[in-house]
Amino acid sequence: MSVTARLAELGVEVPEVVPPVASYQPAVRAGDFVYTAGQLPFKDGVCLATGKVGAEVSVEVATDCARQAALNALAAIQNLIGDLDQVKRIVKVVVFVASTPDFTAQPGVANGASEFLGQVFGEAGKHVRSAVGVSVLPLDAPVEVELVVQV
Amino acid sequence: MSVTARLAELGVEVPEVVPPVASYQPAVRAGDFVYTAGQLPFKDGVCLATGKVGAEVSVEVATDCARQAALNALAAIQNLIGDLDQVKRIVKVVVFVASTPDFTAQPGVANGASEFLGQVFGEAGKHVRSAVGVSVLPLDAPVEVELVVQV
Amino acid sequence: MSVTARLAELGVEVPEVVPPVASYQPAVRAGDFVYTAGQLPFKDGVCLATGKVGAEVSVEVATDCARQAALNALAAIQNLIGDLDQVKRIVKVVVFVASTPDFTAQPGVANGASEFLGQVFGEAGKHVRSAVGVSVLPLDAPVEVELVVQV
Repeated sequence: MSVTARLAELGVEVPEVVPPVASYQPAVRAGDFVYTAGQLPFKDGVCLATGKVGAEVSVEVATDCARQAALNALAAIQNLIGDLDQVKRIVKVVVFVASTPDFTAQPGVANGASEFLGQVFGEAGKHVRSAVGVSVLPLDAPVEVELVVQV
Repeated sequence: MSVTARLAELGVEVPEVVPPVASYQPAVRAGDFVYTAGQLPFKDGVCLATGKVGAEVSVEVATDCARQAALNALAAIQNLIGDLDQVKRIVKVVVFVASTPDFTAQPGVANGASEFLGQVFGEAGKHVRSAVGVSVLPLDAPVEVELVVQV
Repeated sequence: MSVTARLAELGVEVPEVVPPVASYQPAVRAGDFVYTAGQLPFKDGVCLATGKVGAEVSVEVATDCARQAALNALAAIQNLIGDLDQVKRIVKVVVFVASTPDFTAQPGVANGASEFLGQVFGEAGKHVRSAVGVSVLPLDAPVEVELVVQV
């Protein structure tokens, strides 16, 4: 099944690219790789949540944020290469989670991105991942997600 | 000398792959590159330590953790490509160190990974590296290590 | 205009490579990519500042630090490949900003690196970027910058 078909089945519409919040590009192709910028969980121009997981932000909300940020990364890729069916492999996902020092369930939060990518890309969506708890993210977003994909 | 021979000389046995703690793969090949997931310092199913460096975890223990996490990354690579002698170059190492804000010796901790890779791979083990102090890591591990290698 | 010419126009001299603070290389080439180590804002052997942005370090100083660290990354690349005009594309920039938990303007700080790279490389300098707030960096530096470039 094509990625486009899977997205339709999931009821997911790839959004417009979120404009970078500073002097960089949403996605860049180099050889057979596309790199995305670190994506924040913006939806319709609004960040889905702000604050730290373990304090103001629940695991559930943070997990949704990881999914949204991954979707925004797909939007950046689609905008660059024209068609997500050209993605041969989701290679790597990094999920930064703004965390209080005692919150240690970053892998669960990051699954919001990983499981979504698995649903959309199937076998091609199987990736390596680093999930890291950081003190704070841009605009106080709870999650930032970057991708490396092979095209 | 082959990598296998060097490992034997060092008395190092490459362990079984540590099962990912969530929805991702331990290693992925894309073109001539193998990327690993962020690896935690598990040994025989147990994390060697938990907590932050600068507080509960000493530099010595954290350095051992970095070495173990790097070894686990090698296990992931070997499991994927079959043979560590196929590694042409350790390209990049990222070492995240869960740190109290006043602990600034991340480079020493990260050397636990870097020096081990140098011992195992010799010239081919010379890599770039980022060492970063973060607020917290998955499962409260003190260190997380990811690799990019060329095969 | 060549990169060399642009650097001259900007009055920027590419410095000597900053010696790694531990067991790694300043830059490594793999295929058509050059990766740099995480670079700290050293200038003439001294770190431009120490401490956290949001506390001891101002946004202005941190932005200068990001620019200096990016320049040091260029020094590492030039030393490896001989000539910055061989850079076809700045692909990816990661900017780690040592931040208090309430400082959320990492994108502005990271622009110190991104805008400098844009000035030097023009179209070829357009990159993806992740800006992340972390608890602490090596030697208490406020900023660490790593690059991936295509040659």
